[in-house]
Amino acid sequence: MSERVRICMVGAGRVGKVHSNSIVRHVPGGQVVAMVDPAREVLQATAGEFGIPNRFDSLEAALEQCDFEAVIITTPTPTHRPLALMAAEAGKHVFLEKPMALNLADCDEIIAATRRHGVVLQMGFMRRFDPEFAAAARRIEAGEIGQPMMIKSLTHGPGLPPPWARDLTTSNGMLAEVNSHDWDTVRWLMASNVERVYTEVANFKGPANRIDIPHFYDNVLVNLRFENGGLGSISGVCPCGYGYDARVEIVGERGIMQIGDINGQAVVVCTNRDQGLITPIYRTWPERFAWAYILEMEHFVQCIRAGTAPRVGGEEGRWAVAGVLAGTKSFLEERPVYLREILPVGRSNA
Amino acid sequence: MSERVRICMVGAGRVGKVHSNSIVRHVPGGQVVAMVDPAREVLQATAGEFGIPNRFDSLEAALEQCDFEAVIITTPTPTHRPLALMAAEAGKHVFLEKPMALNLADCDEIIAATRRHGVVLQMGFMRRFDPEFAAAARRIEAGEIGQPMMIKSLTHGPGLPPPWARDLTTSNGMLAEVNSHDWDTVRWLMASNVERVYTEVANFKGPANRIDIPHFYDNVLVNLRFENGGLGSISGVCPCGYGYDARVEIVGERGIMQIGDINGQAVVVCTNRDQGLITPIYRTWPERFAWAYILEMEHFVQCIRAGTAPRVGGEEGRWAVAGVLAGTKSFLEERPVYLREILPVGRSNA
Amino acid sequence: MSERVRICMVGAGRVGKVHSNSIVRHVPGGQVVAMVDPAREVLQATAGEFGIPNRFDSLEAALEQCDFEAVIITTPTPTHRPLALMAAEAGKHVFLEKPMALNLADCDEIIAATRRHGVVLQMGFMRRFDPEFAAAARRIEAGEIGQPMMIKSLTHGPGLPPPWARDLTTSNGMLAEVNSHDWDTVRWLMASNVERVYTEVANFKGPANRIDIPHFYDNVLVNLRFENGGLGSISGVCPCGYGYDARVEIVGERGIMQIGDINGQAVVVCTNRDQGLITPIYRTWPERFAWAYILEMEHFVQCIRAGTAPRVGGEEGRWAVAGVLAGTKSFLEERPVYLREILPVGRSNA
Amino acid sequence: MSERVRICMVGAGRVGKVHSNSIVRHVPGGQVVAMVDPAREVLQATAGEFGIPNRFDSLEAALEQCDFEAVIITTPTPTHRPLALMAAEAGKHVFLEKPMALNLADCDEIIAATRRHGVVLQMGFMRRFDPEFAAAARRIEAGEIGQPMMIKSLTHGPGLPPPWARDLTTSNGMLAEVNSHDWDTVRWLMASNVERVYTEVANFKGPANRIDIPHFYDNVLVNLRFENGGLGSISGVCPCGYGYDARVEIVGERGIMQIGDINGQAVVVCTNRDQGLITPIYRTWPERFAWAYILEMEHFVQCIRAGTAPRVGGEEGRWAVAGVLAGTKSFLEERPVYLREILPVGRSNA
Repeated sequence: MSERVRICMVGAGRVGKVHSNSIVRHVPGGQVVAMVDPAREVLQATAGEFGIPNRFDSLEAALEQCDFEAVIITTPTPTHRPLALMAAEAGKHVFLEKPMALNLADCDEIIAATRRHGVVLQMGFMRRFDPEFAAAARRIEAGEIGQPMMIKSLTHGPGLPPPWARDLTTSNGMLAEVNSHDWDTVRWLMASNVERVYTEVANFKGPANRIDIPHFYDNVLVNLRFENGGLGSISGVCPCGYGYDARVEIVGERGIMQIGDINGQAVVVCTNRDQGLITPIYRTWPERFAWAYILEMEHFVQCIRAGTAPRVGGEEGRWAVAGVLAGTKSFLEERPVYLREILPVGRSNA
Repeated sequence: MSERVRICMVGAGRVGKVHSNSIVRHVPGGQVVAMVDPAREVLQATAGEFGIPNRFDSLEAALEQCDFEAVIITTPTPTHRPLALMAAEAGKHVFLEKPMALNLADCDEIIAATRRHGVVLQMGFMRRFDPEFAAAARRIEAGEIGQPMMIKSLTHGPGLPPPWARDLTTSNGMLAEVNSHDWDTVRWLMASNVERVYTEVANFKGPANRIDIPHFYDNVLVNLRFENGGLGSISGVCPCGYGYDARVEIVGERGIMQIGDINGQAVVVCTNRDQGLITPIYRTWPERFAWAYILEMEHFVQCIRAGTAPRVGGEEGRWAVAGVLAGTKSFLEERPVYLREILPVGRSNA
Repeated sequence: MSERVRICMVGAGRVGKVHSNSIVRHVPGGQVVAMVDPAREVLQATAGEFGIPNRFDSLEAALEQCDFEAVIITTPTPTHRPLALMAAEAGKHVFLEKPMALNLADCDEIIAATRRHGVVLQMGFMRRFDPEFAAAARRIEAGEIGQPMMIKSLTHGPGLPPPWARDLTTSNGMLAEVNSHDWDTVRWLMASNVERVYTEVANFKGPANRIDIPHFYDNVLVNLRFENGGLGSISGVCPCGYGYDARVEIVGERGIMQIGDINGQAVVVCTNRDQGLITPIYRTWPERFAWAYILEMEHFVQCIRAGTAPRVGGEEGRWAVAGVLAGTKSFLEERPVYLREILPVGRSNA
Repeated sequence: MSERVRICMVGAGRVGKVHSNSIVRHVPGGQVVAMVDPAREVLQATAGEFGIPNRFDSLEAALEQCDFEAVIITTPTPTHRPLALMAAEAGKHVFLEKPMALNLADCDEIIAATRRHGVVLQMGFMRRFDPEFAAAARRIEAGEIGQPMMIKSLTHGPGLPPPWARDLTTSNGMLAEVNSHDWDTVRWLMASNVERVYTEVANFKGPANRIDIPHFYDNVLVNLRFENGGLGSISGVCPCGYGYDARVEIVGERGIMQIGDINGQAVVVCTNRDQGLITPIYRTWPERFAWAYILEMEHFVQCIRAGTAPRVGGEEGRWAVAGVLAGTKSFLEERPVYLREILPVGRSNA
């Protein structure tokens, strides 16, 4: 085997742990040589857990003092642009968590910088690598259900996002932080861009959670029309409490396809006929997408080694951000919003 | 057992057959003594099949020549108003198929006439009597999933509706003819009226089916906001080809509930590992809602005998029509439409 | 419609109620004109509930004082022979609950008497009429899974059978009272007679239930070899507590088939990710086989009216009893037992 | 991270590939430094695929010329004893595929040799590491379904085993080569040894597959009684054609548990209402037990590094062999066989 790809993990939190675990345990072609996090204790704990030798409080410091070829950026969205640009300018390959950035200008800068420096840019849309989603995509593409007509994609998460991720002044809220995956999934499986969106939101648990920021919502339902005439919806509920739930249903001209199950492990128990059968549900996203997280890291390392473009890159990240922005504008203005209202004029959106 | 309720079945088509079968075979308290249909051959065939002795080409003729206490109206929507009024004015109890009527004025007339003459008016929303939907409703009401926040209801039907049922000049199209059940279901299970709607439609199979009427659609996805702040969607696909599919998913403050399965009979077969397991799907609505159709007829007969109000009557029918009208206006005007734009001013909508 | 078949229901207990309900509500061609039960209060309650006018404490009294064409015998097994003979000799058609009788001589007498008097004899194997079992049988017969090689049939019941039904001196125990259905099912679906059996039994809950009769068991597992070389098993657990569970799995030369689901109603709820999804289970046999109980009564009435032989009659009942006797002998003697050891010599067992 | 455990893979066939893949891609603490196979082409192909540098035609040669700490033995059963002894005597840790050996004397020798030389002996019962089986075992042990009363374990494999594996003169046939896992599973989950067994076998596809060796069978169904009074069955069908199927059902005093699903990937499709829904089935064992194969290798490496005993070792392998021998004796002699008839007298069977 050739040399392993040396990686600097930026962010020692939950996502940083998941990716470190994937690389350390399941991606022999990669190696996490450094970890960056300004929170000293979290950094030491996570780096210690995964045996990561070099630890820094900033990417700048890491770039100066440590040798690596790639970064994995898992920090909050507002930091994506500066970190990705810094990495690209230093010639490092970039794996960037979703959502790509807060706005399209930032997305464009990131795309331009990685292109200019000839480095890989892969977006953290791990559903593309989930064996079920990937098999479904192949089967749709092969025509099994005919031309897709209607798609529904949902992501319901068990817990309350952190304060910055639910405030529209510091992020694009749940539509971005939770539903970015759905924005990418619907475009991927429909093989068409979204043309216009209409969004309704609701706030059911805000008061009980003492959240009084403007425009806070914990339920969202977006109606979609695609450029190819197809329809769709994206829904988000967070916190939903009952589990981590990510499913898609597609109706094509020839049939229907359901991707993902509401139940998890196939261990069914019944001890009380008045209660009924009990089946585990996925509790968390790392559990639901265990293989997907491994396989996206494997893919990143392979792309770097082979010099090939990743299956999911900057354009995909940018379209998801565009959807989020249109979806948000829609509920703020209480009207359907066209993606062309959001996308910069005169730019080709491949 | 006391005397059986004598019923005149108006309409000898598919729905007339289903209801005749229910009464003849499973509702001993009722008796189909007459059948009405202008199509002579269909009338003779269906009446013959179910041993219905008196046969007429119009309700008028039946009222004149035959003794009965109730009518079941299963004819196309445009006939609902005149037939229901005629029956009510003759003092007959009325079971009326969905959709109730073409517009709210007609609904109001029907409601007023049945009230004035003191006869029962039951709407053909059989899902209210489906053991699964009914159990789900009781469990939601009992608080099992907490306050409902988001509901999704779908009805996908295998075949193409008849020409009158897909033309907006003679009916209210698929939203009415197929999705009336969903309009009633979401209001029932959310325990709240719809406040505003936004609709997207698509036409995928029209050309292949040589349909070139204006505004034809075979896919519809409606976004809903309820008066209580909840969200929802209704979707329709017709013809979907793959089966008869009617399912609901509700997320409440405490959990999720799924009503109805995509699979039908529990007979699972695998004979080819490259193909996989095969499970039957419901082919038709009479199959999917077999018990519901029996139980709604039983309920109608019981209400007549006991002089009680049916669980689902004119108000429910009227709200479904209001939803359909708002939903249709939305896609024609490409904007969210409030139910209050549709509902007559100054009328209390209990 | 011609005259209704007049029926005398013998036994006012649980099974008598189920059959009365089926006929009164769902079999317009039949009429329960009389009910027999020596337990006066039970008789009055059940007959009252179903509006059955004539009530007797013995079949003899009913035969003398009331006019009917058929009897349905739902009383404990030891009474089957005398009641069935009395009815046949009086020229009444007989519907006989399982198990047919306590031994093969009794079965033979019942078969002979009903043949001699030219009356219908239908056995209460309602699974033959269950839409799922019936569809499965048709599909197996059509060759869908090829030649059946191995079948497993289970019946687990929630509660403790009555004392007479668990004592080998007054009945043939659980193998007969609970698993008679399985004995019929495996023979039906394998299209072959059982050739030899080997039985293991266990007694787990006897002490807690204060049962100290000899040979009591509450778990049974029978290994089967069929005349056509196929294999199989029958299992019984009673009381199992967790629900009413009746399922079959068959492997044929071309594939596998599963009949029946462990879950009941398709209403799935999750309110706690540490607990998981909850799905109802069938609580009781009348719930699980609701349609089957209706359809077997419809069939009985049709056979009487049309003068045709029922789909499941005396031979089927007799084979099930033979299996029970061989299965019981096997665990008592701790060895495999051939059916030919049980079956009378020189008699053709078609 | 400390030094990696150096491993020699003995056998370059299907199982050797699965384990090599697990270690190379997913067990960073281990390293396959050598591979042994007398079949030169297979050896070169597999070793090449996984980048294994040292290649030998015998374990002897590997021991002489290469430095490693552990062996993984994946060769046909008759070779297990000599290879395991050779490895143990050279002080190498041993991972041994199932079945452990052809007879109990061989098992005892292997156990004694590994004990004497203080090396780890882990058996290839990967189901112990499957997340579903492992979770189920924990839940049973925690009392969730109460005292287990009855267990059914099945393994149906798609293809025909190789000639040596179906001939009782060179192996112990399907009961050993396919159902070894079931023998281990039932003992593990019932927490009790098997006391006696009764076996029926059938030969349905032998003629079509041109197999005319004595006692060949392709269907087997074993009835079990456990020392604690519980009952059970093991079934095997090979070739079953329809997929790889491994499931367990357990009834305890308080309820039922099902482990494993017949369906595989949660991608459900319906394109034809006359056919129904299609769900993938597991095609092969490496697919069904993907995580289990990784986790058992991880466990082996951890045990070596930590000097701890594996969760599943020689005693477990030996009990499975004892079950196989009793089960085989049973069908040859057509009688129930006690395990004590098989087990050497005077040896404590912990």
